[in-house]
Amino acid sequence: MSIFIRGGTVVNADRAFKADVVCFGDKIIAVGDHLDVPAHATVIDASGQYIMPGGIDTHTHMQLPFMGTVAADDFFDGTAAGLAGGTTTIMDFVIPDPKQSLLEAYHMWRGWAAKSAGDYTFHVAVTWWGDSVHADMGTLVRDHGVNSFKHFMAYKNAIMADDETLVRSFTRALELGAIPTVHAENGELVYQLQQDLLKQGIRGPAAHPLSRPPEVEAEAANRAIAIANVLGTPVYIVHVSCAEALEAIVRARAKGQRVYGEALAGHLVIDDSVYQSADLEYARAHVMSPPFRAKHHQAALWQGLRGGNLHTTGTDHCTFCAEQKAAGANDFTRIPNGCGGVEERMAVVWDAGVNTGLLTPSEFVRVTSTNAAQIFNMYPRKGIVGAGADADLVVWDPQGTRTISAATQFSNSGFNVFEGRTVRGIPSHTLAAGKVVFERGQLRAVEGAGRHIDRPAFTSTRAA
Amino acid sequence: MSIFIRGGTVVNADRAFKADVVCFGDKIIAVGDHLDVPAHATVIDASGQYIMPGGIDTHTHMQLPFMGTVAADDFFDGTAAGLAGGTTTIMDFVIPDPKQSLLEAYHMWRGWAAKSAGDYTFHVAVTWWGDSVHADMGTLVRDHGVNSFKHFMAYKNAIMADDETLVRSFTRALELGAIPTVHAENGELVYQLQQDLLKQGIRGPAAHPLSRPPEVEAEAANRAIAIANVLGTPVYIVHVSCAEALEAIVRARAKGQRVYGEALAGHLVIDDSVYQSADLEYARAHVMSPPFRAKHHQAALWQGLRGGNLHTTGTDHCTFCAEQKAAGANDFTRIPNGCGGVEERMAVVWDAGVNTGLLTPSEFVRVTSTNAAQIFNMYPRKGIVGAGADADLVVWDPQGTRTISAATQFSNSGFNVFEGRTVRGIPSHTLAAGKVVFERGQLRAVEGAGRHIDRPAFTSTRAA
Amino acid sequence: MSIFIRGGTVVNADRAFKADVVCFGDKIIAVGDHLDVPAHATVIDASGQYIMPGGIDTHTHMQLPFMGTVAADDFFDGTAAGLAGGTTTIMDFVIPDPKQSLLEAYHMWRGWAAKSAGDYTFHVAVTWWGDSVHADMGTLVRDHGVNSFKHFMAYKNAIMADDETLVRSFTRALELGAIPTVHAENGELVYQLQQDLLKQGIRGPAAHPLSRPPEVEAEAANRAIAIANVLGTPVYIVHVSCAEALEAIVRARAKGQRVYGEALAGHLVIDDSVYQSADLEYARAHVMSPPFRAKHHQAALWQGLRGGNLHTTGTDHCTFCAEQKAAGANDFTRIPNGCGGVEERMAVVWDAGVNTGLLTPSEFVRVTSTNAAQIFNMYPRKGIVGAGADADLVVWDPQGTRTISAATQFSNSGFNVFEGRTVRGIPSHTLAAGKVVFERGQLRAVEGAGRHIDRPAFTSTRAA
Amino acid sequence: MSIFIRGGTVVNADRAFKADVVCFGDKIIAVGDHLDVPAHATVIDASGQYIMPGGIDTHTHMQLPFMGTVAADDFFDGTAAGLAGGTTTIMDFVIPDPKQSLLEAYHMWRGWAAKSAGDYTFHVAVTWWGDSVHADMGTLVRDHGVNSFKHFMAYKNAIMADDETLVRSFTRALELGAIPTVHAENGELVYQLQQDLLKQGIRGPAAHPLSRPPEVEAEAANRAIAIANVLGTPVYIVHVSCAEALEAIVRARAKGQRVYGEALAGHLVIDDSVYQSADLEYARAHVMSPPFRAKHHQAALWQGLRGGNLHTTGTDHCTFCAEQKAAGANDFTRIPNGCGGVEERMAVVWDAGVNTGLLTPSEFVRVTSTNAAQIFNMYPRKGIVGAGADADLVVWDPQGTRTISAATQFSNSGFNVFEGRTVRGIPSHTLAAGKVVFERGQLRAVEGAGRHIDRPAFTSTRAA
Repeated sequence: MSIFIRGGTVVNADRAFKADVVCFGDKIIAVGDHLDVPAHATVIDASGQYIMPGGIDTHTHMQLPFMGTVAADDFFDGTAAGLAGGTTTIMDFVIPDPKQSLLEAYHMWRGWAAKSAGDYTFHVAVTWWGDSVHADMGTLVRDHGVNSFKHFMAYKNAIMADDETLVRSFTRALELGAIPTVHAENGELVYQLQQDLLKQGIRGPAAHPLSRPPEVEAEAANRAIAIANVLGTPVYIVHVSCAEALEAIVRARAKGQRVYGEALAGHLVIDDSVYQSADLEYARAHVMSPPFRAKHHQAALWQGLRGGNLHTTGTDHCTFCAEQKAAGANDFTRIPNGCGGVEERMAVVWDAGVNTGLLTPSEFVRVTSTNAAQIFNMYPRKGIVGAGADADLVVWDPQGTRTISAATQFSNSGFNVFEGRTVRGIPSHTLAAGKVVFERGQLRAVEGAGRHIDRPAFTSTRAA
Repeated sequence: MSIFIRGGTVVNADRAFKADVVCFGDKIIAVGDHLDVPAHATVIDASGQYIMPGGIDTHTHMQLPFMGTVAADDFFDGTAAGLAGGTTTIMDFVIPDPKQSLLEAYHMWRGWAAKSAGDYTFHVAVTWWGDSVHADMGTLVRDHGVNSFKHFMAYKNAIMADDETLVRSFTRALELGAIPTVHAENGELVYQLQQDLLKQGIRGPAAHPLSRPPEVEAEAANRAIAIANVLGTPVYIVHVSCAEALEAIVRARAKGQRVYGEALAGHLVIDDSVYQSADLEYARAHVMSPPFRAKHHQAALWQGLRGGNLHTTGTDHCTFCAEQKAAGANDFTRIPNGCGGVEERMAVVWDAGVNTGLLTPSEFVRVTSTNAAQIFNMYPRKGIVGAGADADLVVWDPQGTRTISAATQFSNSGFNVFEGRTVRGIPSHTLAAGKVVFERGQLRAVEGAGRHIDRPAFTSTRAA
Repeated sequence: MSIFIRGGTVVNADRAFKADVVCFGDKIIAVGDHLDVPAHATVIDASGQYIMPGGIDTHTHMQLPFMGTVAADDFFDGTAAGLAGGTTTIMDFVIPDPKQSLLEAYHMWRGWAAKSAGDYTFHVAVTWWGDSVHADMGTLVRDHGVNSFKHFMAYKNAIMADDETLVRSFTRALELGAIPTVHAENGELVYQLQQDLLKQGIRGPAAHPLSRPPEVEAEAANRAIAIANVLGTPVYIVHVSCAEALEAIVRARAKGQRVYGEALAGHLVIDDSVYQSADLEYARAHVMSPPFRAKHHQAALWQGLRGGNLHTTGTDHCTFCAEQKAAGANDFTRIPNGCGGVEERMAVVWDAGVNTGLLTPSEFVRVTSTNAAQIFNMYPRKGIVGAGADADLVVWDPQGTRTISAATQFSNSGFNVFEGRTVRGIPSHTLAAGKVVFERGQLRAVEGAGRHIDRPAFTSTRAA
Repeated sequence: MSIFIRGGTVVNADRAFKADVVCFGDKIIAVGDHLDVPAHATVIDASGQYIMPGGIDTHTHMQLPFMGTVAADDFFDGTAAGLAGGTTTIMDFVIPDPKQSLLEAYHMWRGWAAKSAGDYTFHVAVTWWGDSVHADMGTLVRDHGVNSFKHFMAYKNAIMADDETLVRSFTRALELGAIPTVHAENGELVYQLQQDLLKQGIRGPAAHPLSRPPEVEAEAANRAIAIANVLGTPVYIVHVSCAEALEAIVRARAKGQRVYGEALAGHLVIDDSVYQSADLEYARAHVMSPPFRAKHHQAALWQGLRGGNLHTTGTDHCTFCAEQKAAGANDFTRIPNGCGGVEERMAVVWDAGVNTGLLTPSEFVRVTSTNAAQIFNMYPRKGIVGAGADADLVVWDPQGTRTISAATQFSNSGFNVFEGRTVRGIPSHTLAAGKVVFERGQLRAVEGAGRHIDRPAFTSTRAA
């Protein structure tokens, strides 16, 4: 089955140019001017539109068992919502319990993910250390297409990795050709601040950001970067939310260190005034970590994306409905952390980034797919509109508008952090693996159509 | 006429991959696995070698009338030497005298350049201000393929642009879609330091670096960047030679400003001990501005290239023979400024950058051609190995070695700043416009074969 | 005549301690515990109060002829207002017209200042360059107690010093043992932005801050610092108003360079929303340069004072009444620049600095008098409560409050930028040269009682 | 008993001035011009000399039980050596074993210190956490004159404090009005690097600096500063040895955070080439942590002292003789860490700092005594030449020279890291508690003459 996309402007990370795009099976087979339409091809008119690589959301948690409950969007819901928004690949996380086998956890998550409508791949978290962890990391890299390992520097008494674990795991990742990633917050300080706030009787969601100030994030980012520097490994910082953490990245990159940073769509446009709402359900719905920040941090994050110090955009999509969030009604430390976004990321970043002149369309592609594909070794299968690449494409209508709302979203959580925001620039069509899965508002997601994307280890000449 | 390059590893800025490359006429027509050899094609065996875009030297001064003499390499000599080293395009400078018409100077330089053996294009210097300069800038951009204007912040009482000229010219460039570039040294300070040194009787070449300390360069870089920031234009800093100037770039880029920086091959590997030589002819031969720096600056420049804060590599190729340099025998301020390098740049950067692990091959391509092509709007005609691009290619033998020497160079000046340096990694073949112009040591440069490369103005959605 | 101040807490830059203070004639003669009251002494009860050195306002323009008019407060009005606020010494400016003799201007200003009620001393501006300027600088330092020279980097086509003037004057100051100071704004950019705004028809006071963005100040600060660095002279930056200029100082000080910075009371607490007022007279009344800034710059300035990167506080006291300000009703570039503050500085800095915990009382003394006295070589005659020092003292009531208003001020201008601000911490008594000149709201300023303070040149072992 | 010091130049932190100094008992009772000589006073002629506060060495380990042995200089030897060098007060460390009572350890150290010839006071290390530690900290502050607590971030499996201990102890110190201090090195990384080196068979002293690179120190400094920032406490970083750690301090101070840094005399003038010596005994003798660094770090440290980002100078005086050092002959991790310096610090800092023009004499006083006295609340009893202060004085002969050598030192260790260095500027006399204890080379140290200096807690208005 062929698809012929006619007359759009192809946008890749290196340039934009007028071209037709031909897909056959699950691949792009040609990109060029005035191509012939294959027989029986489905033709999509892309005139006046951009044709871009399908988005890669580098950070999701579908179906996550967390803080005593399970995230509302399962792998089908979440990947389907992604397709509706132009995102064709998600990078989710396998998070073993401390002492749990990494392999066992990995297989559990793979089982859950089988129902995905879009492609998926996993970062595997190292939440403890032991000989079996060392061994499992090797197996995962060699046999299971895993090339990134995640470390939580927060969540004391749960999944927090201490410095010993960081040092050992980074060392192991380096020898395997995998890249370590970190959730950068100093868990010891968070814990102390949480206890202080509770002791003072400050128990509502407004306490959440107070327990996780920017300095807590900046410290951890700096520490992870320093450890990576000393050990000689690249490192990737997930959900950089504040100017201070970004500065740690800037300093390291200025010294030539290979450090990568991820921004979340939410952090780019939402500020911490949400926690002051008198509507506590609303405030709780915004509880995630790192929290939303004071407004000036947004400018810093955009500067980071534009100046090449931040590289990818994700969402930390991890939705909980109001009843689940209510578990922390009397204690903000028990509110399940997480917000949505997999469906809105592309439009939010385009609207707030490209329409404002902060980013060019090519830079948009870079930070929504290409860099992710390169950093995590899925390139050029993913992240480029080019012959031979997966036919994961989004046809982007720069004049189309949409007002985001929980009422009309595909995600399951009943809430949307971008509620009421009108964006200009939306997908008219999404193609995943050569199939049109979204067309002008109609979602045609198929359970199980998504594939696990194996990511090979890096070799010694890698850029990362 | 076809050329078939078989079985090499194509290196582009985004990745490296095994492929054959087919050229026809002056273009690349196919890049891929197991391609068919066209009839009558010349076949080049690239097994075990890299196939990379021909180098772009962003900074040369062939045949330059300067300080009362004319540079030793004319446009034929210089471009031919470039081809021998894998550089297929040079970016030279039109430098009007103060009060001279820009257009008149432009045509003069175009005439000189007609004999070039490789492709060439011109930055045009704005050395004074007036209504005719304003008008000529427009004509050059609209009608003559110029999209970059150079400003000397040094050389007081000669071609120095004062702040008023910078402000007016940057403003004009922005409105035309051209990019301003600067030679960043505070000319007033240089002049004062020169006078102080002469007054103290310090007249030899060792005085040269003393009259141009890093702070003098850093100040000017910072000032040009600030002016660009206030006016909202991108800016390109030529020959960044020291950590302090680089820091000014890093600061601006960290704020998302579109600032680009160029490193010279010489500054990357040569330090200021050359000025201490008892052999004054040797010392004078190294006089260029900015001067060679203390060793620790080299590390900073490599970090800049690796971390994405420096983007291109050039040479400031501007050769003068010993007799010419002797004009400053009794007064270092009269030594014609300039050194060579167009022939050695690619090998020096590869050897000191890639062999040491500082840069990946893709990063090498980025800083030797792709970034230059993108910043100056020659991409994807230049700077990529891809179908449709100019057939400017270098087949790179990573095991080949060469000991650089004036005795064996193609350049005319009788001196080589890299004398005695043995590099591993050299061109086995250079193709320019689809012709094999260099093959295993044999240069086949043809006078007049080089073409002027028109560079269109940028539009508003440009990345720069 | 003796004065005995009993039972207060003496605050010096290095510490605070309970003590009595005895003055005789114009000097402090004893500071200590349980001192004897001299016969016939006036006794002031300072229990519960602080006894601090009289304030030094490092930056005033009394009676200034500027932009076609003359500032509303003459030297008597201005110094008297200072005494009411606890400021006993002002540092004013001699500003020669271009081509005017520095000595001639100096004597003119000395004449105007003869009526001062408090002590005064002069920075002399170098607004042009020539042999006579070189000579006059020497005369001023050797014979007239001048040890600081001011340079305006803004005010193109008027008093702006270009780089050549900066380089020559800094060099001369260094050789004389005087310190150069700069008003740091890039005058060329200001001029261009002003012209652009006027061309666009933006002519009201809201255009004023748009024509002088922080980058314009930061550039000039960085340039002055670089010039000072290359020449090896200390440098003092007046009225640092924004984070970006402060960063230039921080960078230099981190490298050990002797750079000093001054903050204005107004910049510390007033933001740029004043220029948005619909009341254009109100907006015009706030026009000064650099302008008031966005709120986050205030935090930066306080951090600078606290962290030792800013050293002094001044006001740029230069008042114009509404009719004078109206000269720029149709063209913001013609609004006489200037605001008041000499009367309020001490209380505003105390209230916003000490009451909030940002500064300790000792740090308050440091930034309101001691550092100024040390940097400008009036120490320990000024800037310390100690035997032998001038009996310039303020008895500070930390519980006293006052609501600032033009209606109740001593200054002449009919406007107050701090209008309506209630401060806690005010002078109960001010002593100048051993006389009680202000007592619980009653001002007893005497025309001509102020003295010119000679400031000797620095010697080579100076800290500055 | 009176002592009259005639005609010197008194140097305090704020200024230098000609004066006589009169001591009576253990106090200074007068400082001034042309004072009367008390009856029976010992008269010291200080003409042509400086009179400065006796030095405070902020960092010594006399008689330290460490790594299975005990430091060679006991409290008498060490304090006596200090007196010979112009240092009249040492700040030593109580270092409890993990699980040992802080109070018990404190009393043990007090017992050892009773024999001191000069004044002493103790930082107490928090090497573990528990309720008794919390309680003991309170007792020490309230009842024993301790106001500073030390934390080792290195020495894993021994005395290393983990983040939990840091957070709890800093919190406790803040509530008590004590200042936390840290030895900043990431112990986890040091441990990993040590193991890696040993595994590679690199076992000699040259491995020592490889196991403790600057990044390891910078990370820990940044972390301690971040923790202090979040908790709102001042913090003091001991033995800052490298540019990168200093940068962490600069960044924090630029934000107004109250962070203090200490430089060691050794780090200021000795570089890491000592570890390359073929004489392994010599190399081992230099093993201390942090290690000596590459030369460019020395410039950074001097810039820090000069620019106010470093505040004090110490020595980490902790001497071991060759036989003790030989314990690590086959394993560099077993070499007892430590070098001398208490005797040489003042002269080394003067010679390399003041003679070179880097520091003024007042700045020398600031960094050798005044700042220490202020930061640790001994001021104005210590750190100033003023009436009422302790009669701890050094009469400094700026023309006197001495060639440092183990052969002529008073310290016990048989080695001197400054061996062969000739310094200009040495004490002619040292007075401690009003006694002449050193006079032109003759040491008159008296066992037990030293006193414990109680340091009261800070109150809320403190500057620290």
